[in-house]
Amino acid sequence: MNCPTSIKELINSFKCLPGIGEKSAERFAYHVIDMDKDTVKAFSEALLNVKNKIKYCPKCNFITENEICDICSDPSRDKETLCVVEDIKSVIRFEELNVYNGKYFVLDKLISPFDKIGPEETNIDKLLKTIEENNIKEIILAIKPTIEGEATSLYIEKMLQEKKNIDISKIAHGIPLGVEMEYLDSLTIELAFKDRKKIS
Amino acid sequence: MNCPTSIKELINSFKCLPGIGEKSAERFAYHVIDMDKDTVKAFSEALLNVKNKIKYCPKCNFITENEICDICSDPSRDKETLCVVEDIKSVIRFEELNVYNGKYFVLDKLISPFDKIGPEETNIDKLLKTIEENNIKEIILAIKPTIEGEATSLYIEKMLQEKKNIDISKIAHGIPLGVEMEYLDSLTIELAFKDRKKIS
Repeated sequence: MNCPTSIKELINSFKCLPGIGEKSAERFAYHVIDMDKDTVKAFSEALLNVKNKIKYCPKCNFITENEICDICSDPSRDKETLCVVEDIKSVIRFEELNVYNGKYFVLDKLISPFDKIGPEETNIDKLLKTIEENNIKEIILAIKPTIEGEATSLYIEKMLQEKKNIDISKIAHGIPLGVEMEYLDSLTIELAFKDRKKIS
Repeated sequence: MNCPTSIKELINSFKCLPGIGEKSAERFAYHVIDMDKDTVKAFSEALLNVKNKIKYCPKCNFITENEICDICSDPSRDKETLCVVEDIKSVIRFEELNVYNGKYFVLDKLISPFDKIGPEETNIDKLLKTIEENNIKEIILAIKPTIEGEATSLYIEKMLQEKKNIDISKIAHGIPLGVEMEYLDSLTIELAFKDRKKIS
């Protein structure tokens, strides 16, 4: 007896998700059999929609369904402050908590000596250009304090040290080493924004 | 700032899966953005295929893409022995291990006094009809030994006690209480089939 092909294919698809092994994928696939037909259709369409509609904002690299993301196109936000983050999850978390009202820049990739990712393979060049072109007055580095994060922050700091008219700060207070931004409690994130420390 | 609608919808879809909460669903959805376009398309189609193609076999309630499942339509299998299981996952596990060569009957629902599921809400009537019509000589009850499983086994045993020409046995050796069949090691399952105990 062989498991029906369609089930096998769905198990393989679920196994593409992060942290999902054979047993969990099987459990999900068998669950789908008993799900409501409309729910499965919506699920199937949601997958395609995300892939077809979601683009990266050309200004800040955050996700959007439009040409420019909601944050970049919002005139009420502080245009002269730029918060540099590692990933889109950081932006979503900060926005949820409403702790910051400037613009963002998503690096996506950090400098990593171990993985042989140098500054030229990151978005840092684009970041420097953005700072130049948009007359940014303040940079907040909100990158998690891992080796890669620190290396990236230091590099950005060094590249900007000649610009005397820009304040650079780093979010600080209480962000523990090696923790993902998205799982931090709101107070820690709020304090980290409030107690940011000038570094140049 | 609002998270793009298509992402929100995908997060909600992932949350329909068993054991998946907000954070895991978000993690999966963000992962989909960076997945290969063809992989996402295949995933989306796999969901629809499972929902559209998978049916329950009218004879044994196992899953199939055809009118009758592979096991029921296999002439090489022992037609006179019927293994009664709780769910399709049990069938798949037993088939993987190749410990049994008869037919199956999937109950799907067990009798549960606590959830007010009586025998009339289960497939037991259909099971009795199947036994009658197919001239079954041996029944193997392979239901896990929880309160619901035991209640169901006892009820089936009681319903069959007048049929003197049917051997009823229960898989036995070493199946620990409250464990899901699909996670058991092969030796335990093999021994349980081998050491099944006649109960009437």
